[in-house]
Amino acid sequence: MKATIERTILLKSLSHVQSVVERRNTIPILSNVLIEAAADGTLKLMATDLDLQVVETVAAAVDQPGATTVSAHTLFDIARKLPEGSQVQLTAADGKMLIVAGRARFNLSTLPRDDFPMIAEGDLPTKFALPADTLKQIIDKTRFAISTEETRYYLNGIFLHVTDGDSTTGPVLKAAATDGHRLARVTVPRPAGAEAMPDVIVPRKCIAELRKLLDEVEGDVEITLSPTKIRFGLNHAILTSKLIDGTFPDYSRVIPTANDKLLKIDPKSFMQGVDRVATIASEKTRAVKMALDRDKITLSVTSPENGTAAEEVPGEYTASGFEIGFNARYLLDILGQVDGDMIEVHLADAAAPTLIRENDTSSALYVLMPMRV
Amino acid sequence: MKATIERTILLKSLSHVQSVVERRNTIPILSNVLIEAAADGTLKLMATDLDLQVVETVAAAVDQPGATTVSAHTLFDIARKLPEGSQVQLTAADGKMLIVAGRARFNLSTLPRDDFPMIAEGDLPTKFALPADTLKQIIDKTRFAISTEETRYYLNGIFLHVTDGDSTTGPVLKAAATDGHRLARVTVPRPAGAEAMPDVIVPRKCIAELRKLLDEVEGDVEITLSPTKIRFGLNHAILTSKLIDGTFPDYSRVIPTANDKLLKIDPKSFMQGVDRVATIASEKTRAVKMALDRDKITLSVTSPENGTAAEEVPGEYTASGFEIGFNARYLLDILGQVDGDMIEVHLADAAAPTLIRENDTSSALYVLMPMRV
Repeated sequence: MKATIERTILLKSLSHVQSVVERRNTIPILSNVLIEAAADGTLKLMATDLDLQVVETVAAAVDQPGATTVSAHTLFDIARKLPEGSQVQLTAADGKMLIVAGRARFNLSTLPRDDFPMIAEGDLPTKFALPADTLKQIIDKTRFAISTEETRYYLNGIFLHVTDGDSTTGPVLKAAATDGHRLARVTVPRPAGAEAMPDVIVPRKCIAELRKLLDEVEGDVEITLSPTKIRFGLNHAILTSKLIDGTFPDYSRVIPTANDKLLKIDPKSFMQGVDRVATIASEKTRAVKMALDRDKITLSVTSPENGTAAEEVPGEYTASGFEIGFNARYLLDILGQVDGDMIEVHLADAAAPTLIRENDTSSALYVLMPMRV
Repeated sequence: MKATIERTILLKSLSHVQSVVERRNTIPILSNVLIEAAADGTLKLMATDLDLQVVETVAAAVDQPGATTVSAHTLFDIARKLPEGSQVQLTAADGKMLIVAGRARFNLSTLPRDDFPMIAEGDLPTKFALPADTLKQIIDKTRFAISTEETRYYLNGIFLHVTDGDSTTGPVLKAAATDGHRLARVTVPRPAGAEAMPDVIVPRKCIAELRKLLDEVEGDVEITLSPTKIRFGLNHAILTSKLIDGTFPDYSRVIPTANDKLLKIDPKSFMQGVDRVATIASEKTRAVKMALDRDKITLSVTSPENGTAAEEVPGEYTASGFEIGFNARYLLDILGQVDGDMIEVHLADAAAPTLIRENDTSSALYVLMPMRV
């Protein structure tokens, strides 16, 4: 293998693939990136952690096709430090890869390309496209609610499923994430091709890598999937992930439908108020109390160590007054994702799940469990 | 105590004082900042860790003079989150401090001001001034060499002492730091008033806080000291520190005077070359080999895990060729502090200390011990 590539292109591509590679690996080749130079003038870079695989194809001057694998982090660090604008020559021979750029020469250990594990995609019968912006929104508005509890592995991702929807929406694609304390759900029109889509849970790490790649993508992302694998086609990169083998709970049961106390409030001043009073909340509980009175919300925190904090936030509220407590962190996560300058908070009582959404036509919906304060 | 202060001023001042406060304290009041409102329209904020004390004085509208102490980090976090441009009202009464800004109210626990420990400055007979820029240079060019080994506590700071100098320099003030592997020394003309200055070792934490404060200071810094305490007067802030009670080794013995092999080299390309080949160096040794030949320097690293790296860097060198090894990290630290586009590296042999300086009139001088490669 012998190929020459611009340092900028190599660096950008490596920055994508190296983040899939775990820092510590018991299987040495998983630390490596597979580099394959093809006669058509492309260089393919591939990295995997056995559950998630990324392949990126970039332009290069290929003198001699071939492939090898070298340490992804080392090659990334080298590419970072090479002079800007330099041409990087990659030559693989005799179990080594020679990297030459300017006056610098590196000779890296390699492992054979044939030992590099590939995720067998198998048949991916469902195929549809989503605009990159829609996919970004789906991820941003749900990922914070993904559980990090490893014992509840079936909550460690975003649940995607299609339903018939209702007469106003038509068929929809729903994305949901929950950790048992809060739930986030985004609903978008069902894309063509997703009619027979199986329910799938996309793992957290795949979501994180996908989200990073989406920052550089415009236009559509091509999604193909089976009940066990999902593949995202983004311009020059292809991300393939195993899906979580588990059953996502029937989350629709926890979405309240009869909460009769409606608060309308500006999410920005609400968020700032919560953030401020939470300053003195104990790290452990992060509990904020919300006292609702006619058109007046009082946020407060009492901390045995620090003292007390209170802030009044204006809001439209006409139901009977009561008090309810929330985890400030969870409330801030939700408020940070809300667009617009007015949101609806649907409450029932101090122990019942609370529904938060922009309005009844917004694509995103959040459910938050209260805490005793 | 009752006073009103602009949030911006309070925040800036707290950002200075809170960084002196350690995150964990066994003595509760050391977590607090002392706030003292005086009838002349000033607010004094003071923090201490018993070895280092900072006092900052800012303008405020004082309704009622008085003083109290509250958690420095909590007050800092609150000030950060208060609305920009707001006025902050501070009222201390009955063991509490009430903070009101906009719609937000905080009631913080306090501890009595009389319990707040002050560093007794005692008599500080030596008094001189240094331009803030000179002090910044002294710190930047030496602090990286300060030892972090707690057992060699007498190396955990910058050593300041005055000498008569020689006929070309006249009397000088010298600042030196070393960890046994490298030494950095800066020499400046002895400022008026420093004639009878005792030798002192200024601790690392004092240096770090001083350096932060210097970013916002122009003009002169007033330095007063005794054999046990030092005090820096910077505009509105006064930093007082205990000095390290120990004897700094006679470092002049390790500065080589008869190194007969001279390399002249551009510090930027030298630095980039070292940085690049060091990419593959093992984290532990960080050893870079330098092979010197006539007007040609070859930097190289051999790593059992990663492979090899080499880079040629042009330089002026006419002495006999040989090889020498350095810790890349230490070399980069020094090269990062060198100004100008040519430096002198004075070498003797592969085992002898190497001298690095810009030229024979530069204020900074570095000594680096080689390592076996």
